Amino acid sequence: MPTSAVSRLSGQARRVEPFHVMRLLARAGELEALGRSIVHMEVGEPDFPTPGPILEAGQRALADGRTRYTSAGGLPALRRAIAGYYADRYDTPVGSERILVTPGASGALQLVFLALLDPGDRVLIADPSYPCYRQVLQLMGIEPIAVPVGPDTDYQLTAARAEAAWAEGVRAIVVASPSNPTGASTAFDVLSELHALCRDRGAALVVDEIYQGLTYDVQDRTALSLGSTDLYVINSFSKYFGMTGWRLGWLAGPEDAVEVMERMAQNLFIAANTPAQHAALAAFDSATIAVLETRRLEFQRRRDRLLPALRDLGFSIPVEPTGAFYLYARLPEGLKLDSMTFTSRMLEEAGVALTPGNDFGRHDAARHVRFAYTREIEELDEGVRRIRDWLAGI
Amino acid sequence: MPTSAVSRLSGQARRVEPFHVMRLLARAGELEALGRSIVHMEVGEPDFPTPGPILEAGQRALADGRTRYTSAGGLPALRRAIAGYYADRYDTPVGSERILVTPGASGALQLVFLALLDPGDRVLIADPSYPCYRQVLQLMGIEPIAVPVGPDTDYQLTAARAEAAWAEGVRAIVVASPSNPTGASTAFDVLSELHALCRDRGAALVVDEIYQGLTYDVQDRTALSLGSTDLYVINSFSKYFGMTGWRLGWLAGPEDAVEVMERMAQNLFIAANTPAQHAALAAFDSATIAVLETRRLEFQRRRDRLLPALRDLGFSIPVEPTGAFYLYARLPEGLKLDSMTFTSRMLEEAGVALTPGNDFGRHDAARHVRFAYTREIEELDEGVRRIRDWLAGI
Ligand SMILES: Cc1ncc(COP(=O)(O)O)c(C=O)c1O
Ligand SMILES: Cc1ncc(COP(=O)(O)O)c(C=O)c1O
Repeated sequence: MPTSAVSRLSGQARRVEPFHVMRLLARAGELEALGRSIVHMEVGEPDFPTPGPILEAGQRALADGRTRYTSAGGLPALRRAIAGYYADRYDTPVGSERILVTPGASGALQLVFLALLDPGDRVLIADPSYPCYRQVLQLMGIEPIAVPVGPDTDYQLTAARAEAAWAEGVRAIVVASPSNPTGASTAFDVLSELHALCRDRGAALVVDEIYQGLTYDVQDRTALSLGSTDLYVINSFSKYFGMTGWRLGWLAGPEDAVEVMERMAQNLFIAANTPAQHAALAAFDSATIAVLETRRLEFQRRRDRLLPALRDLGFSIPVEPTGAFYLYARLPEGLKLDSMTFTSRMLEEAGVALTPGNDFGRHDAARHVRFAYTREIEELDEGVRRIRDWLAGI
Repeated sequence: MPTSAVSRLSGQARRVEPFHVMRLLARAGELEALGRSIVHMEVGEPDFPTPGPILEAGQRALADGRTRYTSAGGLPALRRAIAGYYADRYDTPVGSERILVTPGASGALQLVFLALLDPGDRVLIADPSYPCYRQVLQLMGIEPIAVPVGPDTDYQLTAARAEAAWAEGVRAIVVASPSNPTGASTAFDVLSELHALCRDRGAALVVDEIYQGLTYDVQDRTALSLGSTDLYVINSFSKYFGMTGWRLGWLAGPEDAVEVMERMAQNLFIAANTPAQHAALAAFDSATIAVLETRRLEFQRRRDRLLPALRDLGFSIPVEPTGAFYLYARLPEGLKLDSMTFTSRMLEEAGVALTPGNDFGRHDAARHVRFAYTREIEELDEGVRRIRDWLAGI
C-alpha cells in the first residue's frame, strides 16, 4: 500500500513484538520451497497426531451434529471429567464448579489476567518464560516484572527471588511448571513457598501446568493440592493430550472467581469449540492415556538422546530438564555469536531451525537457544550432525 | 464455600454484568426438567445443523489428522476463499492479506478493539445493541457511549445521531448490520455517511456483518465496498453458515492494521480451531450456498409469520426488520409491566422464553423484548398462542 489506510493504532498494539521465530519459520518455508532440507527443532507442539480415541469422539460429535454453542463454562460432562482426572490421577479432589473450559490455555490466561489484574498492576514472571505472558499482560496495561532465573535456582522462580523482586503493585506471580522454554519443573516445596508469599501479600499465584503429564524422572503433581485460596491453575489439552489445533484448555480457581470468569468468557469468547469439547471427553479414557504414556516415554528417550549430544557439542545445559519437550541451551563458550545471529546462520548455513533466547526474555537471552525435541530421534540426530559439522567448519 | 478464597478481583471483572437471559435459560432448564414445555424464542443461533458439505469437510479434516496449530492469521487457503467470496458474491475485491481468520466474530471484535483503542478512549455504539460490545469495551477500560436509536431512524445509528453524540476521545463507531437485537439493516448511504464522519474525525468505522447473508427484501451488501481507510469489517461463520459451535469468524481491515492484529492474535489465541478452518473451506461451495439459501427463505417465512402475529397481539414493531432472525418488540401499550417482569412471568406462567430488552442497553429497554425466530413455524405459532392466552387472562 502506498499510503496507510490506518489513522491510528493503539499504544499497546504498536508495542506487541513479533516473535523472532516467526521470521525464521517464514524463511525456513522459503528455503524448503527451494528444495533445501530443514531440520525443525523449533516447533512447540507434539509431532504426534491427536490420539485415536479423541479423534473418533470428535468424528462422532460431528456425525451427531454437535455444532451449537455450549455454555460459556463448557460442557458439564467435560468439567466433571476434568475434576475426575484431578481426583483420580493427582489424588486432588476439585469440585467441577471450580473448573472452566476455555479456548486453550491461551483463553484461560486471558481470563485469569483480566479477572485478577487492573491496568497498572504488576506481575512477576520468570525470565526466560513463555513470551505470551509478557505480551498479553502488556496488551492489558499490566506491567510484567521479569525475574531472571538460571542454573543457580534450577531455572525456578523461587520465593526468595520473588521476594527480592517484589515491588509496589505486584498482584500476581505466574509460574509455568514444567516450563517453556527451560523444561524445568518447579519443586513442590518451592511452589508452596511461592503460594505462601502470595497469600501473605494479597497476591494470586497462577501456575501454568500446560506441560503437565510430560514429565520425566520426577513426580507429576498439580499445584491444586496447595488448596484453593488465591491459586489459579491453567491447563490445556494441547500438549500432553496432543490437541493443539483444537484450541481447548481449562482453568481451575476458587469457585467465586470462576463464576466471574465464566461471565467474562461469555462476553469474550461465547464458549470453546463444541466438537473439541465432545472429543476431549475421550481424553481421560484409559485407552487414550495408554497412547499418551507411550508418547511420553518417547519424548523422554529423545531428551535422553539430545541432551548429552548437545553437551558434547559444547552447549551448556547445566540442569537436566525434567519436563515439556524443550532444552534451553547456552551457546558454546568459544562461539562469539549472539543467539539471533546463531539461529539465522544455523538456518541458512546448516539447515537447522531453532528458537533464539530473545523470544523468551532478556536475561542472558543473547547467549541461549531453545531446542524442541518434537521430531523423531533420526531427525534430531541429523540436526546434531549438521550443527557439529557447522561448528567444526567455522 | 464458607469463606471466599479470592482476595481480590479486578475492577473491570467486578463490573461485568450477567446476561439476564442466562438466568431465564437456567430457569427454563429447571422447568423442563420438571416436565414443563417451554417454547424457546430466546435462542441466538440457527436451529439448523451445520450444512452437510461443511460437516463432511470437517470430518475429512479429522480423518486426515489436521489437528495441529495453524498460523495465527488462518489457513492461507481460507483467507483466499473469504477474499474470493467478497469478490464473487459482493462484487468487492479484497486482498486476502486484508483478511484475518479469528475465533468467531468474538475474537475479531477483541482484536479490533485492542488494536485501535487505548484505555480511556470512547466508542459510539447503538442502544440497543449486542451486549458484548459494551462489556468487552469496558473490560478493556474503554468507554462505550450508547446512542439511543429507535423507529424514527429505522433503528439505525445515523451520522447525524453519531455527530450529536460525539464527545472528546471518541475513536470508533461500531455498527451491526443487520443488527442484533433489532434485525434492522443500516442503509448503504447511512453507512457511507458514518464512514465519512469517522474519516473526518480520525476515528474508525467498525461494521459487524455477522448476520450478512440473512437479509430479506433488501440488497445484501458489504461495507467493504466503501474502501479500506479506517474501516474494519467483522464477520463469522456462526450465523448464515450455521457454524456457531465451531468458533470461527474473520475480520477485514487495512493491510497494515491486519498485520498488527495477526501479531496480537498470535499472543491472545495462537490461532483459530484447525478442523473448523478446514471445514469452512467448504462453506462457499455452491452446494453449501444452495442449502443456506433455502434456510434463508425459511427464516424469511418465519419472520413473515411472526411479525404480523405479534403486531396482532399489540406488540409494537413499527419498522419491518430486514435481517438476522430477531424481532425487537415494544410491549403492548396497555400492559403495565417492565420487560424483566414480563419475560420472567412469560416463562413461569406461559412457558415462553424471551430475552428482555435490558440485555441490550437502556434506551426504552424496560419496555422491549427480543423474539428470536430460530424455531420452526409450528413452535412459533405455539408461542404466539401461549402469549395470546396469557394476555387474555391477566
Ligand atoms: C507455557 C505455555 N502456556 C500456554 C501455552 C498456550 O497453549 P494453548 O493455548 O494451545 O493451550 C503455551 C503454548 O505453547 C505454552 O508453551
Ligand atoms: C451482533 C453479533 N456480533 C457478534 C457475535 C459473536 O458471534 P461469534 O463469536 O459466534 O461469531 C454475535 C453472536 O450472537 C452477535 O449477535
